[in-house]
Amino acid sequence: MSFVLDWARTDRTGVAEAVLCDSKTPEQIAAILDRARTEDQRLLLTRINRELFLSLPDRSRVDLDFDSLSATAILGAVSPGQEQTAGAVIVAAGTSDLGVAGEAARTLAFHGYVAPIIADVGVAGLWRLMARLEDIQVARVLIAVAGMEGALFSVIAGLVEAPVIAVPSSVGYGVSAKGQVALHSALASCAPGVLAVNIDNGFGAAAAAIKILRVSGR
Amino acid sequence: MSFVLDWARTDRTGVAEAVLCDSKTPEQIAAILDRARTEDQRLLLTRINRELFLSLPDRSRVDLDFDSLSATAILGAVSPGQEQTAGAVIVAAGTSDLGVAGEAARTLAFHGYVAPIIADVGVAGLWRLMARLEDIQVARVLIAVAGMEGALFSVIAGLVEAPVIAVPSSVGYGVSAKGQVALHSALASCAPGVLAVNIDNGFGAAAAAIKILRVSGR
Amino acid sequence: MSFVLDWARTDRTGVAEAVLCDSKTPEQIAAILDRARTEDQRLLLTRINRELFLSLPDRSRVDLDFDSLSATAILGAVSPGQEQTAGAVIVAAGTSDLGVAGEAARTLAFHGYVAPIIADVGVAGLWRLMARLEDIQVARVLIAVAGMEGALFSVIAGLVEAPVIAVPSSVGYGVSAKGQVALHSALASCAPGVLAVNIDNGFGAAAAAIKILRVSGR
Amino acid sequence: MSFVLDWARTDRTGVAEAVLCDSKTPEQIAAILDRARTEDQRLLLTRINRELFLSLPDRSRVDLDFDSLSATAILGAVSPGQEQTAGAVIVAAGTSDLGVAGEAARTLAFHGYVAPIIADVGVAGLWRLMARLEDIQVARVLIAVAGMEGALFSVIAGLVEAPVIAVPSSVGYGVSAKGQVALHSALASCAPGVLAVNIDNGFGAAAAAIKILRVSGR
Amino acid sequence: MSFVLDWARTDRTGVAEAVLCDSKTPEQIAAILDRARTEDQRLLLTRINRELFLSLPDRSRVDLDFDSLSATAILGAVSPGQEQTAGAVIVAAGTSDLGVAGEAARTLAFHGYVAPIIADVGVAGLWRLMARLEDIQVARVLIAVAGMEGALFSVIAGLVEAPVIAVPSSVGYGVSAKGQVALHSALASCAPGVLAVNIDNGFGAAAAAIKILRVSGR
Amino acid sequence: MSFVLDWARTDRTGVAEAVLCDSKTPEQIAAILDRARTEDQRLLLTRINRELFLSLPDRSRVDLDFDSLSATAILGAVSPGQEQTAGAVIVAAGTSDLGVAGEAARTLAFHGYVAPIIADVGVAGLWRLMARLEDIQVARVLIAVAGMEGALFSVIAGLVEAPVIAVPSSVGYGVSAKGQVALHSALASCAPGVLAVNIDNGFGAAAAAIKILRVSGR
Amino acid sequence: MSFVLDWARTDRTGVAEAVLCDSKTPEQIAAILDRARTEDQRLLLTRINRELFLSLPDRSRVDLDFDSLSATAILGAVSPGQEQTAGAVIVAAGTSDLGVAGEAARTLAFHGYVAPIIADVGVAGLWRLMARLEDIQVARVLIAVAGMEGALFSVIAGLVEAPVIAVPSSVGYGVSAKGQVALHSALASCAPGVLAVNIDNGFGAAAAAIKILRVSGR
Amino acid sequence: MSFVLDWARTDRTGVAEAVLCDSKTPEQIAAILDRARTEDQRLLLTRINRELFLSLPDRSRVDLDFDSLSATAILGAVSPGQEQTAGAVIVAAGTSDLGVAGEAARTLAFHGYVAPIIADVGVAGLWRLMARLEDIQVARVLIAVAGMEGALFSVIAGLVEAPVIAVPSSVGYGVSAKGQVALHSALASCAPGVLAVNIDNGFGAAAAAIKILRVSGR
Repeated sequence: MSFVLDWARTDRTGVAEAVLCDSKTPEQIAAILDRARTEDQRLLLTRINRELFLSLPDRSRVDLDFDSLSATAILGAVSPGQEQTAGAVIVAAGTSDLGVAGEAARTLAFHGYVAPIIADVGVAGLWRLMARLEDIQVARVLIAVAGMEGALFSVIAGLVEAPVIAVPSSVGYGVSAKGQVALHSALASCAPGVLAVNIDNGFGAAAAAIKILRVSGR
Repeated sequence: MSFVLDWARTDRTGVAEAVLCDSKTPEQIAAILDRARTEDQRLLLTRINRELFLSLPDRSRVDLDFDSLSATAILGAVSPGQEQTAGAVIVAAGTSDLGVAGEAARTLAFHGYVAPIIADVGVAGLWRLMARLEDIQVARVLIAVAGMEGALFSVIAGLVEAPVIAVPSSVGYGVSAKGQVALHSALASCAPGVLAVNIDNGFGAAAAAIKILRVSGR
Repeated sequence: MSFVLDWARTDRTGVAEAVLCDSKTPEQIAAILDRARTEDQRLLLTRINRELFLSLPDRSRVDLDFDSLSATAILGAVSPGQEQTAGAVIVAAGTSDLGVAGEAARTLAFHGYVAPIIADVGVAGLWRLMARLEDIQVARVLIAVAGMEGALFSVIAGLVEAPVIAVPSSVGYGVSAKGQVALHSALASCAPGVLAVNIDNGFGAAAAAIKILRVSGR
Repeated sequence: MSFVLDWARTDRTGVAEAVLCDSKTPEQIAAILDRARTEDQRLLLTRINRELFLSLPDRSRVDLDFDSLSATAILGAVSPGQEQTAGAVIVAAGTSDLGVAGEAARTLAFHGYVAPIIADVGVAGLWRLMARLEDIQVARVLIAVAGMEGALFSVIAGLVEAPVIAVPSSVGYGVSAKGQVALHSALASCAPGVLAVNIDNGFGAAAAAIKILRVSGR
Repeated sequence: MSFVLDWARTDRTGVAEAVLCDSKTPEQIAAILDRARTEDQRLLLTRINRELFLSLPDRSRVDLDFDSLSATAILGAVSPGQEQTAGAVIVAAGTSDLGVAGEAARTLAFHGYVAPIIADVGVAGLWRLMARLEDIQVARVLIAVAGMEGALFSVIAGLVEAPVIAVPSSVGYGVSAKGQVALHSALASCAPGVLAVNIDNGFGAAAAAIKILRVSGR
Repeated sequence: MSFVLDWARTDRTGVAEAVLCDSKTPEQIAAILDRARTEDQRLLLTRINRELFLSLPDRSRVDLDFDSLSATAILGAVSPGQEQTAGAVIVAAGTSDLGVAGEAARTLAFHGYVAPIIADVGVAGLWRLMARLEDIQVARVLIAVAGMEGALFSVIAGLVEAPVIAVPSSVGYGVSAKGQVALHSALASCAPGVLAVNIDNGFGAAAAAIKILRVSGR
Repeated sequence: MSFVLDWARTDRTGVAEAVLCDSKTPEQIAAILDRARTEDQRLLLTRINRELFLSLPDRSRVDLDFDSLSATAILGAVSPGQEQTAGAVIVAAGTSDLGVAGEAARTLAFHGYVAPIIADVGVAGLWRLMARLEDIQVARVLIAVAGMEGALFSVIAGLVEAPVIAVPSSVGYGVSAKGQVALHSALASCAPGVLAVNIDNGFGAAAAAIKILRVSGR
Repeated sequence: MSFVLDWARTDRTGVAEAVLCDSKTPEQIAAILDRARTEDQRLLLTRINRELFLSLPDRSRVDLDFDSLSATAILGAVSPGQEQTAGAVIVAAGTSDLGVAGEAARTLAFHGYVAPIIADVGVAGLWRLMARLEDIQVARVLIAVAGMEGALFSVIAGLVEAPVIAVPSSVGYGVSAKGQVALHSALASCAPGVLAVNIDNGFGAAAAAIKILRVSGR
């Protein structure tokens, strides 16, 4: 097996290539890790749950920083340097959204950005959101994670100046199973300025947030 | 053509049979009106837009109380008596939802109930909703009309004690065209106690509201 | 892990917050239970099947009133006091719908309401429904649970004065797999006054029924 | 333009080929009629609304027996002989279903079968159906036409011995627009023995009914 | 647990009630069997795979005639008497459709009808179908089972006089996963007289075939 | 308005760029034609119906070879030279498919290829297909156009050696409205070697056929 | 009629409220314009096509800056001041995407931002995109408009540092009718950093771009 | 159990019948293999994963050439003779697409064709594709495998003369789960000449490629 990894992607686009694990065999993931180790590259693995992680050979798992809740693993330093750039804030509607929020936070960290996670601010109890409004309004870019009907996206976008990246999560059942309703709520939002990424795509939200924060520096 | 109308439905279920017009030919509607006039019955017609109304023969249109915005027409008195029962409140997210809200209000009136319409309270500008909260919280049953992403349903249900009947409206475009997103948001709402009717079904929402208000009297 | 539970929701909306378990990890559920115990609060857990229940740590399971068929668990007294309020009736089309009906009954009980479950009244054998009509017509609010094609909703709504809350269940296969057909039948019902909640959402139906029954008392 | 019509189909399968008009140009329909006249063949045209009928050249329309409500036209005698075979009964849930019911009746007539249409027996007023039960139970094959949620199919199939051919009609709006809900209700029916044809396919229902009635004669 | 079984359904509609097992718990199935044994009734169980069958208590399994391929089980005699009525023929497009075909055959047998299964007649090798044409054309009613694109339904309906009951099977992958394409092919068939039942619904197809065969005897 | 046309596409890929008209304004189409005339280039316009064609300014329509049935127009010579290459055969299931078949034929002609159209070979009357089998089997590449259930694709692919390009047409109603069923039948075909293009995409089928025929010459 | 416009939205979120016209009646639009004129406010109207514009009363149309291609109209100055902020670039895959691109450009202008539109850079002729790469890479935020399969989004996001806002357009037919395929391509993009808005939502893309450009100034 | 295998299919259509395993029981697969061994025929099995392979009886597995990644097994020689025909090239967007690409390669080999697999050429890093362009442009027919948004199909079809067979793979999550987006991208491609097969259908792509390559020899 040979792989063509795109190490230059960071330079070209500001975001590194990540390894999406859940459609790969353990053998394929192990071979990619071998290659990265040989070439002395840091690597971010996403959508790697505990079962898949444990199915990797020992030589692959050693030194991997694995996080079960976010289903991510990092080869090499979790963060590229000592200094971390602020500006992003992650908001999660409920406890069930913390896995996706964690994927975003880990991706930001991998690229040198730090972001607090503000949880349990679903709109059914609006006061919980209002109580945290100040912490949210400081954001220069906001990542909002919500499942079910995704009403949080519209409510929050009407309250802040920052661009809002909506990450629909596959939390729900019946019509909201698999996150389609939350996704559509983000896209159909009556509040202008809401931007959507794929369902459960914490990585993509973080990648876009990084690109937005880099805008200022140019 | 002969028709079997269900005049006894009011006694049996509390709500009269209405004539859904948009799948009927002008000839069929005219024949139904003739029958009602002959039997001296009041009649509520729904989903009858101006074009369809004008295509009816003259003898059918005379004495009909036609309302263009709500696309309804009433044969006989608009309201059954002098006294009207209060308790229902209708909330419409935006101007485009007023047609559906009107269908609900006209149906309530036809049965002897009166309900104010509170408009322009979409969640993108939360203050507009908050400014009307007192008027909303007096409701014993709330009819909420919203299209696009339907976030209003969850927000409002978290703020009131009354049961909330969500009427998704077919306002929107792209993913929210035809009201599917608003409908799914109502069904997947994170706020318990939200009840949904079919898209644009102001009549059904009013019928249910009447049944709920009648509960108290039993 | 820290959680922001909405203990005041009962006061604000008449219905307590419940913990939807199937999208949470055992660790998250255990932490929420710890918090509730610390704060001496009763708590309702839904969508917790036997396997998930057994994966909780021992300290979490002790004292939990677990019911396998309805996949619910209650911390603290199952019912808030000695007196239970009547008025709701639950109808289940078939044996397979009893789990969802049970979720509704347990939720009602948790809030101090009692409701009989009337089962096996599918419309393919209309006499079974007719035989129970008197028990059904006493309801001040009716919760109807049905899967497959959901014809029960329309038939029953044409026979009773009470508002009908339709709970589509995910019982069926082929086109009716996952409850979509039953849901759509509820929404498209030719009988006015049918109100729908999400598929399998016994909790939501009960929450709405409680709100409706509380209307009378105001 | 030349056409290969399948005149032998009646011998082979018991049902004649019909001309589905709404996807053909007026020129194509006119050419097919010319061919049939030249070869002295009777011909059934379906899905030909008034506008399309009027767009045909004069030579095509003369002698055509056109029926607006069912959107059918027949070249030659409407029925093949003096004697008509009974056994089929057509039931229509509401006034809006009469066009589709008419297509079935005209197709049956074209092949020498006669069938009464029993209308306005929707399940929201069950007594209307029950009042006609005797007329329905004589059927050796039943064609049932219903739109919206299609609950009629299940109710009726639980009451009769005859096979039930369900024809979903595209009557409804919101989730039931275009007849999908009624179709799915037929397919997911809890009453065994319900058979479905395509939405609005009165012709296909009649064709199958003819095949079923011919079974007895073999 | 108590159940209201519809033992009189055979008299009323010609087809017995069957127990759809895959949405019931083992406890529920066992209780139903107990009831049937107590009342000395024969019983047909469908959609009961080996795993579910083995999860039943011993007292339930004894004397049950279980068939793994068709996932059916019969309590009491497999067939009601010595004489079996012919007239139905079952055609299966491929080997993978034999489970569904078997459900139809077992249902027919339970009611006293016998039907041969003709397999491996998919249209990609038309000669295989043509080689069996004589055996197929004797049918008074034809049950055709096919998955994938379901082209068999149209081809066969153009070749026989008998009514064709199409049973789409959930055989396929990609766009044809879960049988939707085969179902839609049956409904949209260019050959008149094709009747459809739900995906994998061998039971329903047999029930309808029985009703059709009974037509002759009246 | 300025346009960047890809005149070099023929050299690069063997197929010229065509102008898809139905999503363009008359002004945009006229400007593109002006450009092509100025640069003395031949041009193929697709999806231009009579109404759109007539809305073009006079200067645009002069010299355009417009064909109503296929909704195509050609600027310059219809065919690039005197000699036309054979090898492609177009098969159309019914009369209603001739528009799409015509788009394919016109596209082939524009590129110097000639293909006969064989019509009315739907599988409901298999003998019509069999009668033309010899004309079909000479094809080196076959374009098959069918709507409704698209069974033709599988039947024909089982009978010929040539690759079969399936063009689903938007002919049908109910479940087959808009061509989705025919498309899915092509993709799920039980006969290997069926290749699909988009619904109604006669142009794309011809483009692919040209590429296939060019394979031999390399 | 009275309206509650959210004039303060610009201050709160950086983007003004716009009037989505296509779900409003001419009377409603006229009343909103009257209000704006009375309060001396600038106003942006979107999704107002020529037919709707012409149906407004004369007093409403005078002074309105109407643009047919983008279906927008502006009351008051098109741009808020003399100075316009650069940084956004709009890319349109084809001529048919220029209407949506224009809505984005007009919205940017209304808020004081200027953005060039680079058209005809679809990926089927990659050289056209590459020829404009320098003009594209200067963008601090990129708005990309594409219909059909939307491959442009992934290709362009792999080439630039700026965040890419994908606007799927409803250009296409068959499976790509109504823009769903392009939307899904944006969401499923293999290139990280692609952000999606609703189909045809040029306004929303511009609103988000403004929020992103404002990030730098804070 | 008896089976009617279509050994003559190779002669008739150029491609052998293959055994699609994942909808068959181990017993059925074993019986088919027995038949093939008895009749001394080579046989290709597809969609047979390791678990299913291991569930076959020992007598079935001996001598089977099983390949885990492509989930294929071959009875008899992997290739029919010593000489292999070139001309096909397989391109895979990412590592996760290698299973589907392998199914195509194994099918080609079984019929005597050889094709290189060129991997990791996704469009997010266009340089990886460009670096392999020469190897790709030699193809006389190209098989392209891609999941997620499937942008590769359009990009590659704009760069080569050969016909492109697009195989959407079920790689992705959220909206792209199960391969629908990639399939639709292939069908809606803006680059003419893209031909699609079903999702994950490496076998079908190879079958079509063989038919195309055989065109030259006739």
